[in-house]
Order: sequence, then structure tokens, then C-alpha cells
Amino acid sequence: MQLFIVDRQRLDATIDAIKALDEVELLLVTDEVLEIHRHGTIETRARVPLNTIMDLRMVYTPGVASVCQLIADNPETAWKYTSKGRRIAIVTNGSAVLGLGDIGPLAGLPVMEGKSAILAHFVKVSADPILIDSHDTDEIVNIVAKLSSNYGAIQLEDIAAPACFEIEPKLQDRLDIPVFHDDQHGTATVVVAGLINALRRTNRTPQDCRAVILGAGAAGTAIARFLVEFGLDDVVVCDSVGAIWPGRAERMNPWKQRLAETTNKTDARGSLAEVIRGRNLFIGVARPKVVSKAMIASMAADPIVFALANPVSEISVEDAFEAGAAIALDGRSMNNALAYPGIFRGALDARARRITHEMKVAAAEALAAAATDQLLPDMLDASVHSRVAAAVATAWKQADRTLAPV
Amino acid sequence: MQLFIVDRQRLDATIDAIKALDEVELLLVTDEVLEIHRHGTIETRARVPLNTIMDLRMVYTPGVASVCQLIADNPETAWKYTSKGRRIAIVTNGSAVLGLGDIGPLAGLPVMEGKSAILAHFVKVSADPILIDSHDTDEIVNIVAKLSSNYGAIQLEDIAAPACFEIEPKLQDRLDIPVFHDDQHGTATVVVAGLINALRRTNRTPQDCRAVILGAGAAGTAIARFLVEFGLDDVVVCDSVGAIWPGRAERMNPWKQRLAETTNKTDARGSLAEVIRGRNLFIGVARPKVVSKAMIASMAADPIVFALANPVSEISVEDAFEAGAAIALDGRSMNNALAYPGIFRGALDARARRITHEMKVAAAEALAAAATDQLLPDMLDASVHSRVAAAVATAWKQADRTLAPV
Repeated sequence: MQLFIVDRQRLDATIDAIKALDEVELLLVTDEVLEIHRHGTIETRARVPLNTIMDLRMVYTPGVASVCQLIADNPETAWKYTSKGRRIAIVTNGSAVLGLGDIGPLAGLPVMEGKSAILAHFVKVSADPILIDSHDTDEIVNIVAKLSSNYGAIQLEDIAAPACFEIEPKLQDRLDIPVFHDDQHGTATVVVAGLINALRRTNRTPQDCRAVILGAGAAGTAIARFLVEFGLDDVVVCDSVGAIWPGRAERMNPWKQRLAETTNKTDARGSLAEVIRGRNLFIGVARPKVVSKAMIASMAADPIVFALANPVSEISVEDAFEAGAAIALDGRSMNNALAYPGIFRGALDARARRITHEMKVAAAEALAAAATDQLLPDMLDASVHSRVAAAVATAWKQADRTLAPV
Repeated sequence: MQLFIVDRQRLDATIDAIKALDEVELLLVTDEVLEIHRHGTIETRARVPLNTIMDLRMVYTPGVASVCQLIADNPETAWKYTSKGRRIAIVTNGSAVLGLGDIGPLAGLPVMEGKSAILAHFVKVSADPILIDSHDTDEIVNIVAKLSSNYGAIQLEDIAAPACFEIEPKLQDRLDIPVFHDDQHGTATVVVAGLINALRRTNRTPQDCRAVILGAGAAGTAIARFLVEFGLDDVVVCDSVGAIWPGRAERMNPWKQRLAETTNKTDARGSLAEVIRGRNLFIGVARPKVVSKAMIASMAADPIVFALANPVSEISVEDAFEAGAAIALDGRSMNNALAYPGIFRGALDARARRITHEMKVAAAEALAAAATDQLLPDMLDASVHSRVAAAVATAWKQADRTLAPV
């Protein structure tokens, strides 16, 4: 008999129950997730044959010298004759890994490998995990800049706010390849993709939205900024204290202050329970089970609820529907793995120098258009990622390389 | 018709000759080496299936969180449940790439990719090229140390002497994984492997050798040190000036001074032509065509000649034989790609914390034993690399983890 059990508590209870049985012997308990991760989920492979001396003499010395000389004479040729044009770095310092917090870069490696496996499988992009043991933003920027030459783009990953807000633009200023913090912009892109279809289904425009975002970290901040740029006039961001407004005293920092100044036009104040009342769009990127059915019931008619905390959402989809949500989604269907593979592949294909707002909008629209019966498409469908990549590449080319702010 | 032409001059001459012909049209000239290197010679692949939602939930969120937590609680488990135990970094600053000199890290990338392709193909080790844009040894050491956590070993590559002599021990002091400069120790290991069989064939012992090494850079220095440790009493190193002796004025540095103090027991002085006279072992790791037939003819009877400059050796094998060499080899058969794949795989398998002298000797002896009709085995034979790996792993375990000096 094979059982699939998702958490340690239930596993222990199940083992105890089985052991208590007479004449039933428990032969083996394996952890399937651990087995899948044994020796890691990615590997490097040779793309070329190495079966003859002639193969070796072309891949390696002496033949390789002519390729080196070509690149020394003209560095642009590295995009053609090395893996640079299909390779990115996934950079983390492990300071905000999933919901686990600052567990350090090595403990974050399985996530980086998982992201890399997804990139390899769906868009044939090679991604090297780069784990930096540092909390010094300038040091992180300097290290990545110094080792960036063989990558076509840099994906920042699981770096805590507010350091991530500083690292991304500083690094982008030093490099002529895209620097993209997925926890911010990947998440925001998928949220906007879902929102496009949710608005269509509920016959609303961006201007009709009265949005409240719970979570003022990397994801919440990026979502708020993207929504404002996307045309939403009324966006309030809450953290664990409540609504963020300019001049609030508790738990503010310069980034929250700036966020407060560019959102919250209605000058909303108070707790989430107070702020959510009468609004029609809730987006949670915070903590499990912090939103009650009563809060959803207090919203305007037919609200849209995106509860994205992982692995357990702010409110379950079932509870949100019971409380009156017209649309409710959690992180299982609204996964940022929908966006980043196509965004990176498209940026590499177009040899973009950064990821512009237009490219993220193009990705969101491509995702929205690729959805059929659901609000968002199936991320297992490789054609979805191709469509995103094509849209992102076109957006870079159409922008005529104007460097719009990221 | 398909022609294979190895250098640009001959190619241009051939094209001109063909164009001069009547009624013959040249349709296409392709560079096969460049075509092989298009998009690079390595790629990252997923090692796990990503076909179902359940696959994704185990490789990526939410399942991956349990692997991260395990590693956070016990970092040792990263060796089991990530790619760390089968992954190395190939680190360069591009300051001494092949015979091309300081062409920078990006221009060196095709070599790093070639090395990585060889590691992947022959010993299933994943190797990430890490290109560091710096000539500051302390900065290089610091960057590599800060990003080392997901590698089981560090291969230093194509870093010029004398910086490489400083970087390797400084980095090794900071890390509990092996740091191995292949241009030094990989080359020296293969030389010793060839020497073991050459001595057997010429009925000599290490003590019978009167060696002269041409080249006092990374390879020459490491070969000289290895030969002395291997039991050769009489080793003289020459650079472009001539024999290196303590107190020599021209073109010395502290490393050459130290090398002079630990070699040259006969206090040899003068040019290569003067020093080589009467000796019975010549090892060249210098420049093309700098050794004449007369020099070889001036050596003792039945000399051993290893002329390893790439892509053109100090003296051709044919000329060396004509001048009386009993044994003559060049870099085509005496390639360091014979050694480093097995050395790294063995070190990873044993989870060695450094590469000891005993491990290099074990690798050299395994290579010598694997050779059949030639002095050295065929590097295309994967079983050779397995034998090296097994010998290296055993040597680490037998040393009972005593940290012998590298």
C-alpha cells in the first residue's frame, strides 16, 4: 500500500496508527519529496558529442582557442558561441526563502534548483544557482556584477525586503542585462494576468477596482506599484499593523513611506478588517489564515479574492466563495512559475537589456489570453511559456529599446 | 567536397585557390569549430520529471519547503538532497587562457564550458563556469568563498602565475572543500603518470632522473614541486632567461626564488641550451618551437622528452625522436583532461576536504596502470576516469583525513 502524506504531524499519526495494528508490518517509510531531491533536481550536460579525438579537439584544445580569440576580439560573439544567450544566474542570499524566513543560502538551494529545473524543462534556459553568503547589499551587488559576464540575465530570488528594493536597481544600473527580482515582479505579473480575466468576467475596468493588498514586503510592494501603473486608482496596502499611510508611525521604513505616498489616495487608515470593508478586490501575499469569512462578507458585492500565501492561504478558496466572493484563487493556480520562464526566455531571445513595464504587461496579457476555462492557463502547457516569451520579446523590440523604468 | 582546415592562414589560402579555379563555385564556408560551440557546449537539464501537478508540487512549492527546512536544521544534508555533492565551480579571471594570455573571463568561457562538458560526459560531475572580472587576488578569494556553499569542490582555471599561487592556498584555508588549480596540479599529475611508465620502459628510477623543466609559471612550478616530492633529486627549472637559481637577478619574483631554493641542487646556471646538456629528462610547458634537435642531441643517452606547449609544442615528437629521444610525447597525448575529471569525481565521492599529495600520486599511478600500449591511457575511455576516481577516493580515506599539505 502506498500513502501520500503532506505533513510531518499527519505522517507521525499515520505511522503510529499502523504500528498499533496487529499482524500488519510497516516495511518502509520513504519521503517521496526527499527522494525526488536526492542528488538535486538539476544537472549540467554536454550539448555536444565527445566520442572521438576530433570531437575533443573541437570542443576543447586546440580548437577552442579560435572561439576564445573571436570573443576576445569581439565580446558580442559570446552571445552566439557560448551558452551566455541561454543562461541566467538565480541569485539568492537565502534571507526570505518561501515562508521559512532567513534560513541562509544553502538551505534555499532546493528552491533555486527547482526554479532552474522549471526553466530548463519549459523554456530550455540554463539557470545556475548563485548562493551568496552575505547580508550586505553593496557586497551582494558587487559580487554579482563581478561575475555576471557569462549570463544573459540575472534572476534575484528569495532576498528579503527592503534589501531587495535596493539591490535590484543598483545592480541594474551596473549591468546591461536584465535584473529581475521574481518575488516582486513575477508575482505581480501573474496577479495582473489573473486580474485581467477576473475584471472581464465581472464586467469591471481597472478604474472600477477598489483594491486592498495585505502584505507590504517584496510581493505586496511590487503588486501595488504594478496595479497603479496598470490603471487602478484606488489601492490600499496593509501590513500586520493595518493600512499604510504617509506619516504613520508604527513599523514604517523609507520604502513603506514611499509606497504610502504613491498609493492610498483615499487616505484609508485602520486595521485590515476596517479597510477591507466595501472594497471589491483583495490580494493577500502575507500569512496563512489571517482573513475571516466575515471580512470577505464585509466587502462590496461580488468581490475578487486572490489569497496567495504559501503553502496555506490567507483564507481558503472555499471559505471565500461561501462568504460571497465572485472569484477566488489561491497560490496553487496563481503561481509565479507561470510568468518567469517565459519572461526570461523572451528577454534572452530579444537580448533585452532590462525588463520594462511594457514587457511585464505583455507577459500578463499573454497569460490572460492563454487561459481557457480557468482564470489562468495551465503552467504545465509549454505553449503557454512560448506565448509569454514571444510577447515579452516583441514588447522589448517595439519599445525600440527605450529604457522605460522597471 | 568537405575540407577540414585548422588555421586561418591555410583557410584563406585554400579559399583563394578555389576561387581562382574556372567553373568551380564555392558555395559555403563554415567553421566547424564555431558551429560546435554555437549556443555553448553545456546546458542545464532537469533531473526529475515535471509532467504533472504532483511533480511540480514535489520539485517546487510547497514540497520543496521540507527539503529546505531539513538543510536549515542540518546543513550536512545538502550533500544528499541537492546537487552539491556532484557540482563544482570552475573559477577563472581569464588572465592566462591557453596560450592566449590575459584575454579576460568572458573570452575564456569556451574553455570553461569545454572543461565542464568533459566533466559532465566522462564523470557526471556538473561544473558551473564562474567568471570573475578581477585581478585582485583578495577580491577573487573573497568572492569565491562567499558563493562556495553549493559546490563540492572548486576548480581554479587559467589564472596567471603568480596570482594563482596566492589564491589557491588562501581560498583553501577558508573552505572545507577541495580547491584545485588544474593548470598546476592536473598538469603535474599527468606528467608524473607519464613519467612512471617512461621510467619503467627505460629502466630508470626517479633517483636516476636528471630533469630540466622549461617554464616557470603555474604548470612548471607545480611539476617541479611534484617531481621533488615524487623522489627526483635533480630538478632544474628554466624560464626564458635560463636556469633559475637562488639570488639570480633577472626576472625573479618571490615564488621563483622559493622554487629556486627547493630545486636546482646542482646549482646549474646558464641558458636552456647549456643546462639541458647531459640531462635525461626534458619537460616543456613553455612556448612553441623553442627547443632544437641539437639541444635534444646534447642530452644524455635515451632521454625522455615531454614537450607540452599548446597548440604547438617546444619541439615536435618526430624531431625529438630523430635527435635521439627514447620517449617523446606532446600535449595531444599528455592532456590534463586525463586527470581532473577522475580527481574531482573521486574527491566528491569521498567528500574530501582538500586534494592531498597522496591523492595526486594515486591519480598518477592509476593513470599509469590504465595505460596499455601507450605511455598514457586513452582519455575517451570512461573506465579510465572511474579508475582514477576510485584511487583518489581511496587515497583520501586511507589518509584518515590527515590534512597533508597540498
